Order: sequence, then C-alpha cells, then structure tokens
Amino acid sequence: MQNFTFFNPTKILFGRGRIADLAKEIPAGQRVLITYGGGSVVANGTLAEARAALSHAAVTEFGGIEPNPSFETLMGAVQLARETRSEFILAVGGGSVMDGTKFIAAAVPFPGEDPWDLVTRKAPVQAALPFGVVLTLPATGSEMNSGAVITRKSLGAKLAFGSPLLFPRFSVLDPTKTYTLPPRQIANGVVDAFVHTVEQYLTFPTYAPVQDQFSESLLRTLIDVGPITLREPLQYEARAAFVWAATLALNGLIGAGVPQDWATHMIGHELTAKFGLDHAQSLAVVLPAMLEERFEAKRDKLVQYAERVWNLREGDAETRAHQAIRQTRAFFESLGVKTRLTDYGIQASDIQGLVAALETHGMKALGEKKDVTLDVSRRVLERAL
Amino acid sequence: MQNFTFFNPTKILFGRGRIADLAKEIPAGQRVLITYGGGSVVANGTLAEARAALSHAAVTEFGGIEPNPSFETLMGAVQLARETRSEFILAVGGGSVMDGTKFIAAAVPFPGEDPWDLVTRKAPVQAALPFGVVLTLPATGSEMNSGAVITRKSLGAKLAFGSPLLFPRFSVLDPTKTYTLPPRQIANGVVDAFVHTVEQYLTFPTYAPVQDQFSESLLRTLIDVGPITLREPLQYEARAAFVWAATLALNGLIGAGVPQDWATHMIGHELTAKFGLDHAQSLAVVLPAMLEERFEAKRDKLVQYAERVWNLREGDAETRAHQAIRQTRAFFESLGVKTRLTDYGIQASDIQGLVAALETHGMKALGEKKDVTLDVSRRVLERAL
Repeated sequence: MQNFTFFNPTKILFGRGRIADLAKEIPAGQRVLITYGGGSVVANGTLAEARAALSHAAVTEFGGIEPNPSFETLMGAVQLARETRSEFILAVGGGSVMDGTKFIAAAVPFPGEDPWDLVTRKAPVQAALPFGVVLTLPATGSEMNSGAVITRKSLGAKLAFGSPLLFPRFSVLDPTKTYTLPPRQIANGVVDAFVHTVEQYLTFPTYAPVQDQFSESLLRTLIDVGPITLREPLQYEARAAFVWAATLALNGLIGAGVPQDWATHMIGHELTAKFGLDHAQSLAVVLPAMLEERFEAKRDKLVQYAERVWNLREGDAETRAHQAIRQTRAFFESLGVKTRLTDYGIQASDIQGLVAALETHGMKALGEKKDVTLDVSRRVLERAL
Repeated sequence: MQNFTFFNPTKILFGRGRIADLAKEIPAGQRVLITYGGGSVVANGTLAEARAALSHAAVTEFGGIEPNPSFETLMGAVQLARETRSEFILAVGGGSVMDGTKFIAAAVPFPGEDPWDLVTRKAPVQAALPFGVVLTLPATGSEMNSGAVITRKSLGAKLAFGSPLLFPRFSVLDPTKTYTLPPRQIANGVVDAFVHTVEQYLTFPTYAPVQDQFSESLLRTLIDVGPITLREPLQYEARAAFVWAATLALNGLIGAGVPQDWATHMIGHELTAKFGLDHAQSLAVVLPAMLEERFEAKRDKLVQYAERVWNLREGDAETRAHQAIRQTRAFFESLGVKTRLTDYGIQASDIQGLVAALETHGMKALGEKKDVTLDVSRRVLERAL
C-alpha cells in the first residue's frame, strides 16, 4: 500500500424524502442561490420541492447551466450571487450543475480580477461559499468530491480544478429524484462510474486488499444493477444501489493508497472536445482498446479482474484476461453504449488530429506509469476504430 | 437499502513517516495537550517523535490514561487543559486514549457543573476542543469515528457517548508505529475489527450490495492478514492492510443503510465489567454462540457469509451456514483468543448474575430486531460455556 491522505467531509443524506432535510441543513434566514441546468428539474418537480424545503431562506435562482458547464455562463451566476450577497449555494442537478457550482462557489469570494485564474491554477482557491447538492444524475461522483471540470468556450479550453474547500457541505441522494432520467443518461452513468473505478483499480498490484476488493465490489454491483436499473427505472433498490456505487466510485476512498491510471479519461476528453461524444461514450470507446494495448503492463491486475469481477476461472490466465476485456466491451454495448470510433462516425483519418490535440494539451505521458506516450495513445485509438 | 446519513470528516494521514505531518496539521504557536496511556509510547519512541514534530507548538503532556479510561483519571486532564488553556489535544495511543481524549475534548469547554452529564447524555455536547490522533493500536476504529466509551469507577458505570463534534480532525495511521504491540493486542485487534464488521453485516438481507460486499471485503482481509501480521509483526504490507481494515470496520461506511445488531457487544460488555475479560475476548466468546442461538433469524445472511467470506460451497445451505460459524470460532482460536466462557473460568453458575447485570443496564431488547430478550441472552451465554 502506498502512503495516502484521505479526507472527505461531505455529509450524505441518502434515501427517499431527504430533500425535506434541506430545512435543517441550511440555517434559517440565509440568502441561498439555487443553481440548476435545463428544464428537467422544473418539469419533474425536484426544483419546486427544493424551493419548498427552503421556505425559511431567501432564495434566488440561476438556471441554464449547460452540459460541459462554461465559464461564460457561470460568470452570470457569480455576478448574481455577488449582487444578492448569497451566503450558500444549492446545486440541483447532475455533474455539470455540481461542477459549475464548485466554480461559482470559489469565484464569488475570489479577490482577483479574473476567476478563470482559479481554473488554470494561476491563483489558489483560498475561500469558497459553502454549497450543497440535490443530486439528479448518478454518474460523475461530483456530489462527494472536490473536483470540477470547467469549459471556457472562447478559448476552446476544458480544464479540471479542485480544492479541499470545494467539497459539498452535504449532498441529498434521493434515488427517486433520478427516476425521470432518459435511458441514455442512465447507461452513460453506469459506464462513467464503472470506468472511474477501473481507472483506480486496473493498474499494477500493490498489496492493497481492501482497496482492491472495494473496487471489485463496486464493479460487480454496477454489472448487476446497471441492466436492471436501465430496464426498470422505477425499481428503487437497484437504482439506490447504482446511486451509492456511483458516488463511492469517485469519492477518494478506493483510490487511496493505490496507483491510478486516468489515461482513458484523458484520451476520452479529446473525443468529446473534437467530436461531441458524451463523456461516457468516449470512455466506452477508449477503455477496451486501452486494456488491450496495455495488456502486458496490466496483465496481473487483468487476471485478477477476470477472476473476481467476471468470475472467469476456465482456461489459462492470459485467455481469461482477454475474455474479461471482451466482456467489458460487451457490457457497455449491452447498455446501449457503443464502443467503436466508427460507431460515432470517426475514421482512421481523424486519429492524427486527436493525437495532435493530446500533444497540445500536454498529454504525452499518461497512465499509472506515465508510459502512455503519444504513440501509445495513437495505437489505442487505432485499436478503437 | 434503508435511508441513511453518512458524515465522516476525519482526515486520514496513512503510511510511514506521517507523524512528521503533525507540523502542518497543527498551527504554529498553538497550545497543545498531548494525551497518552501507559509507558509503551514512551518506550518505543512514538511520543518523542510526536513531540519533535510539534516543536513549533507549546506542548503540555498528560499520561496515564488507563484501559477502559475512567472519568476520574480523565478529569485530571480536563483540569490541566483548562489551566494551560489548551487549544488542541493530540491523542497518542489506542482506543482508550482516543476515547478518553474525546471525553476531555467535550468536557473542557462544557459550561455545566459535572461533565459526567455529557456521558449520561443529560447534557448535549455543544462544543469540543479540536483534537487529532496518532494511532498505536489498530482495533477499535475510534481514530475515525465520533464515539467513545467512558467508565466511572465510583459508580461502576461504563457508558458510550458520542457527538458529530467528536470526530478527530485528523488521524495519523503509521503501521510501523504498531510494530511493538504484544501479540495478544494484535490478536484482540483482529477479533475486534472482525466483530465490528459482523455486527453491521450478519443481520437480515436488505438489498444493499455495496455495503454487503464492502463488509465481506473487510472480513476476508482480516482472515487473510490477521494470521500473517500476528506471526510477522514487522511485515509492513500485512500490518498496513490490517490497520486500514480495522479503521474502515467502524467509521460508519459499511453500516450506512443497513440493519445493525450489536447484541454481541452488549453482552460482551458485561463479561468485561464482571470478569475483566479483554473486550475482544468477550466478543470471541459471545459471537459464535450468538450466531448459533439466532441461527433462524440470521439464516439468509449466514448462508451468504458462508459462501462469500469462507468460500463454502459444498453441501446444503444450512450445513454451510453452521460450518461458517464453526470456522469463525476456529479463526478466533487460531489467533490465540479463546472462545469459551470456561476458558476464562466462568461457570454456568455465573450466568444468572450476568443476565441480571444486562437487566440492570436496560439490555432487554437487543439485536437488529430488538428480539434478543434476557432469555435469549441467557441461552447465548449457556451456549458459550
């Protein structure tokens, strides 16, 4: 086990009806800015429910935070929060709203001229408005971590930043508030949580039996409940297990003390930026190709993954490991998430541009051993055609 | 899954050399009270190492916190902390020092006359001095939870209390700082962590696949590394896995959203109070008998436990479940922890007094369904002879 620091102060309020707890979590009389995205939280009543629970507070609202939340949009919320002297922000939504809210929380008290400096890390996050979350989309784990990804359209930049000051004070995880999600978003969420786990697990063996087995627990849970919750969106138990697994997949716990990869995410980001793939689609395309391309480096963990996650015990170790990769791909496909570049209209001739984008963004040494060079990334993309 | 609230803000500093981080975690110039127990942290140098890391602070020390920390002893520390106007407490030790420090932290700012009211819950914990931990004994989980058990000798009382204000700000978990523990304490720690997990797992099925599999991960880890770390105390990897498993066994995570039992602990406490058994010894005696006595109520989970934890797949379900209980007992015995009342000189004629003590302490309806009556407890003790 490697040395690690683990810190996660987000209070989780899990289960049916927990939105009512907002009344206790946010002090009476506070000036609260509610942030949200498109109209779904309006249409399905979740926004109204949050508003009702905050009848004791002075509420302002800011809607319209888009997928891949943009600096340009978010600065409108920063201005509104400053004008209304908001003391607390409540994010009602999924990854984009949560990530955007983390930026708003850090930008409002930022004393410098340009809050974009927080995202580029030119300036440290030294203060943040407290904020909470009502989750409507299980996928990104942003509800229980301190990171965010922000896009600045005018610069064509999409950057990750974070700070220990940017953990949500609380997150309401009411599985029933995710019932109205379209199947595509559920399938994407399952893939997203699955790949988050794999990035922290499928590297090389260190002796970390707790972390390994926790990761395997999350992967098996996602394999079991993913298809059920996609097919039966109103089945509480499966949805609840999915929500909790997705949160734990990226709250820092399973990655504490073990090597981490994240090369699949980095390459996937370029697919989203250049061709507009959903984040999870990009991961579903890159991961199986990455595992095949880096088979030797990941062999020991792949064998463990085959046995413990996919219950493959027949044949030699190498055969089982390859079979596990095939089953991973088949799992994504079974959820309706395509796993080939060509499924999204991306051709061999597009690869050079993707590799160039990786180079531009400084992604020349990815992965748990920093040996995923641009050449390796190119071969991964070729395998993914 | 049941509704739950999960909150755990303790920062974990895990690994070799992390005591040096005290210099960063405790602000310069603070007045710090270091609390510790007997001489072991003096003898093995851990206290000196902590003191050295706090050269930037004004340190006072209070030693002599005994096993089953007593109100009488702890009030001496409360007085010292008040006299020295301590701003932070650093506990260097195991469960007793950590639990005692939680009491001190709550008692120092307590405005009432008698801080014992905090333990009896006559008065709520409304403030607490911040405190941190340097762990020297993996077992109780106190390093990452907000509960404590305090004894008042003059009243013959041993009571549990807690508060969300009583999480350690940080806990240094350096496995090498546990190397000098005697085998008995290591064996006890493994049993303690094992039974903590079982109390939150072996109840009745709710659909909570993440929690179930996390618990099974901890149990398998303890079964694997317990004997190794007992036999090879200087083997870092096994000790590290044990330390992390013991912490996660009682930090609130695996018990979130599932039924919990704790009847074994309640009966065990009487054995400790009346006959001086180590806490873990009392658990090792009671648990196998409890599982047999409540076989029907726990049948489904016992079958799952047999298959997933002990890998028992032959024979019918009932046979496997009984076999799992036998293997649990054998596991404790293999660590050198005896599992029969008579091993500790306790006879059938002592049982009436133990049941009377349970009655006196209001323990008439224990367990996950509150159906462990005094009669059931009596039968458990009879089975444990």
